[in-house]
Amino acid sequence: MQIANTNWNYPTTIWFGNGRINEIAQACKNLGIDNPLFVTDEGLVKLEIVDVTLDILKKEGISFSVYSDVQGNPTEQNVVNGVAHYIKNKHDGVIAFGGGSALDAAKTIAFMSGQIRSLWDFEDVGDNWSYADLAGIAPIIAIPTTAGTGSEVGRASVIVDEKIHVKKIIFHPKMIPAIVISDPELTLGLPPHITAWTGVDAMVHAIEAYCAPGFHPMADGIAIEAIRIIANYLPLAVKDGKNLEARGQMLVAASMGATAFQKGLGSVHSVAHQLGAIYNKQHGLLNAIILPYALKQNKAAIEDRMVHLSKVLGLEKQGTEGIIDYIIGLRRELNIPHTLKEIDINEDNAKEIGEMAFKDPSTPSNASPVNAADLEKLFRAAVSGNLNSL
Amino acid sequence: MQIANTNWNYPTTIWFGNGRINEIAQACKNLGIDNPLFVTDEGLVKLEIVDVTLDILKKEGISFSVYSDVQGNPTEQNVVNGVAHYIKNKHDGVIAFGGGSALDAAKTIAFMSGQIRSLWDFEDVGDNWSYADLAGIAPIIAIPTTAGTGSEVGRASVIVDEKIHVKKIIFHPKMIPAIVISDPELTLGLPPHITAWTGVDAMVHAIEAYCAPGFHPMADGIAIEAIRIIANYLPLAVKDGKNLEARGQMLVAASMGATAFQKGLGSVHSVAHQLGAIYNKQHGLLNAIILPYALKQNKAAIEDRMVHLSKVLGLEKQGTEGIIDYIIGLRRELNIPHTLKEIDINEDNAKEIGEMAFKDPSTPSNASPVNAADLEKLFRAAVSGNLNSL
Ligand SMILES: [Fe+2]
Ligand SMILES: [Fe+2]
Repeated sequence: MQIANTNWNYPTTIWFGNGRINEIAQACKNLGIDNPLFVTDEGLVKLEIVDVTLDILKKEGISFSVYSDVQGNPTEQNVVNGVAHYIKNKHDGVIAFGGGSALDAAKTIAFMSGQIRSLWDFEDVGDNWSYADLAGIAPIIAIPTTAGTGSEVGRASVIVDEKIHVKKIIFHPKMIPAIVISDPELTLGLPPHITAWTGVDAMVHAIEAYCAPGFHPMADGIAIEAIRIIANYLPLAVKDGKNLEARGQMLVAASMGATAFQKGLGSVHSVAHQLGAIYNKQHGLLNAIILPYALKQNKAAIEDRMVHLSKVLGLEKQGTEGIIDYIIGLRRELNIPHTLKEIDINEDNAKEIGEMAFKDPSTPSNASPVNAADLEKLFRAAVSGNLNSL
Repeated sequence: MQIANTNWNYPTTIWFGNGRINEIAQACKNLGIDNPLFVTDEGLVKLEIVDVTLDILKKEGISFSVYSDVQGNPTEQNVVNGVAHYIKNKHDGVIAFGGGSALDAAKTIAFMSGQIRSLWDFEDVGDNWSYADLAGIAPIIAIPTTAGTGSEVGRASVIVDEKIHVKKIIFHPKMIPAIVISDPELTLGLPPHITAWTGVDAMVHAIEAYCAPGFHPMADGIAIEAIRIIANYLPLAVKDGKNLEARGQMLVAASMGATAFQKGLGSVHSVAHQLGAIYNKQHGLLNAIILPYALKQNKAAIEDRMVHLSKVLGLEKQGTEGIIDYIIGLRRELNIPHTLKEIDINEDNAKEIGEMAFKDPSTPSNASPVNAADLEKLFRAAVSGNLNSL
């Protein structure tokens, strides 16, 4: 099936379709941006898709400059330098181009471009966001090049506070990009393992959001449909990276996962965030390994929802156990291991990891209330592969 | 189950929960509205829920005036008079309170309050909307009192052009209310038949949107979940009007139906719009009667989707035929007749009705392409009750 170009307007304006990157100058015009700062990361800036995109801007006569001093986990310094660059060159908007890190850094640069307060004043605590100067937030065009984090439709960014080695969330409702260009062709170059890991990250977003206890039927509906799409298309996108339909479906599903998780995430992310910081492992890979253990631990709270989900997915075995078996099978198909041990994570510091995970912003929205000891237990089970210990 | 208060931010900011009407002054403050025009219809203005709401505004020291000269199908004159009232009293925002008619009129008054061009210049044709003065659109707080049209989350209004007796759509992306107060307690007084008819209207929105041919997985996910919620809660809301959970679920589902139908509607609405104008019958009632016939006529195009939907609803009989049987059963339970004949609509002017329905804005997004003769046939079948003629 060839998916036709189409525009959506929730959660924000999304221009979806193959080749839509060619409309980047139109997006600038629509937002009144004459001189955008193009933000991407230090790896991507060397790739052809960036050259091609910048050529489109040049051909359209748009002046711009490029800022690519963005690390895998973007830091406060990356943001501060980006803002200085933005102000020096008198930019009037930001083009955020890349995966989660580039998008998060770019969104934060746009947000901070006109603020008087400093970055950590806007950490997502209480109503910190309400002290921002609305007029000081630059308009953002987001262009995702991976199908995973869904940061293009998110109102927050994750930035590292290097002084204390902690990832902090910066939040503002107006940090959501005003236009998203969702072009599946930009994701064709992703290697199979990155496709798999980022794709499962999107699925975990949708599953944790669906299981989160809040009442938010729109998020639930979007989450369920995202899980169904990922189940249908992720194996295909991994096996045949040139399949544009699979790439397109995955790109949309990733945006849906992130749209849904405004409802909240859960213990998979709580634990994965800590392991990502300590072991520098890929976020989606960690989530993929931890997911079945968290489902098992949450079983009593999520059984009704898992019965529904297993029906939607057409699984033979119903309920949480059916979903766990399905996820384990999917992981095997995607060459993702069953235990953290297999990626060289052992039970060291298990108690501290449980305690840190408990303080993670994802923990309060877990399907069932968990304490530090529960999260330690979850971590230990994911290391050893002992599902029955939960 | 007691549903807790909760706030959502897509498709717009929605404050959901019992008693949230008490936050109406806060909503004004958040939007910088000091002197709102309160718009409702001529029937509602006599009811207690309006008095109670106005009392809250008074207690909070908010100055306002009331405009309730809004008919069941609001006219250009209703809008023009409302705008004059708005300007004369120097209002700086609109509170839209009521069912579809009041909300549509109120949204249009807010939109027109600062425009130089006249109303029909903004009929939803081509890019007419782009000629509007953005600064001339007043902020809108929408407060639905029925669970049906979902106009509170819509970017369009239906206004009657009395000179030619035609309903026209006025569209602007910024006509969507900035804050929706979604308070189930406001719907407790709806009588069973209105609950049933408006509730089925919401279901038809979701079904036609889900069947519309565009690619919009977020709309699909929201539509499917809305149908599931309506299937679970509409009979309960009709049987026990005081059931706050059922009222709350229906209110949300109505907003979801309208969110989904940005993807498009179909032939049920195409025909119902014409019959509403000619016979002055309630919109949801007409939709409810026509729905199974339209499903039958679209069967070849929608079978895959109906197989999925019948699984989601847990129906024994799968596919379009299963859904048709289910809808017929639901209608019976809700005391809705099977034929248009039973509400005194005969086959008079069938050819003209088919032709007019073909020109309806809902027709291009019907699940399968239909011409005037198809729509005439659909209308005749719905009059006589002959499902097998389709
Ligand atoms: Fe994630
Ligand atoms: Fe309708």
